[in-house]
Amino acid sequence: MTDTQSPQITRDLYLEDVTVGDRFVSGEHALDAEQIKTFAAQYDPQPFHLDEAAGAQSLFGGLAASGWHTAAITMKLFVASMPFAEGLIGAGVEVTWPKPTRADDVLHVESTVQEIKHSRSRPGRGIVTVETLTLNQDGEIRQRLVSRMVMFSRPEG
Amino acid sequence: MTDTQSPQITRDLYLEDVTVGDRFVSGEHALDAEQIKTFAAQYDPQPFHLDEAAGAQSLFGGLAASGWHTAAITMKLFVASMPFAEGLIGAGVEVTWPKPTRADDVLHVESTVQEIKHSRSRPGRGIVTVETLTLNQDGEIRQRLVSRMVMFSRPEG
Repeated sequence: MTDTQSPQITRDLYLEDVTVGDRFVSGEHALDAEQIKTFAAQYDPQPFHLDEAAGAQSLFGGLAASGWHTAAITMKLFVASMPFAEGLIGAGVEVTWPKPTRADDVLHVESTVQEIKHSRSRPGRGIVTVETLTLNQDGEIRQRLVSRMVMFSRPEG
Repeated sequence: MTDTQSPQITRDLYLEDVTVGDRFVSGEHALDAEQIKTFAAQYDPQPFHLDEAAGAQSLFGGLAASGWHTAAITMKLFVASMPFAEGLIGAGVEVTWPKPTRADDVLHVESTVQEIKHSRSRPGRGIVTVETLTLNQDGEIRQRLVSRMVMFSRPEG
């Protein structure tokens, strides 16, 4: 697996440290046909994710990564690029795949804070909505993910 | 990896063969701590997905599977239980994780057709919305997935 991680980030962002519009860009992950087929064999064993010829005959017009594989790679890049102090804890997500992810794609993710809601019932907690676009080396969008994530206030003292 | 697949299904359902309310139940997938940690190390390397002690100290109160791992296992069970003739091709999804997936969970999925829309611009195609619940052995919901999937009409001749 070849990928370029972001430099080690300090995980120090609490709820009060983020602002709508904040943007985070990840390192890269270079995909290949073997990775696509390995993931598909385990989790999404459909012909168009396992075989070039079957992919060519399908709606995808060629070997295509499982959307769940694109999502998993996205999460890897997202975790490495979002310095939330308590980690990335998703309450819910929406995902679309405008175009299939291909074997020669070099992926990175760009995340933007869209909304911040402080919890009324649980002080010290909030839900932060983040849009994460997964792009290839030509800037083509392979996945759009909108995540509602639990964030915590900075501990006192 | 231990899992019980459904008996081999015939992939013969076209757009005109499905009805709102149709229901499909999968075989089972037995999770364990090693699977949780292996997936997390590759795709979601956060302490609460990698280590029991770190999980216990987190919001999850114990080792928890990555939501993307639950989603990937769900896809495996979904593919094996939904006999759509041209495969399962997702245009977009919504996912929530009401409770964390645990190492001793034995998962299965139950899918229900919620909506069927025939395409006006592309005759012979439609979008079928399916709700897929991922449940453990006690009937507790670990994930709720709503997928909009491309389906095709039965070829003529």
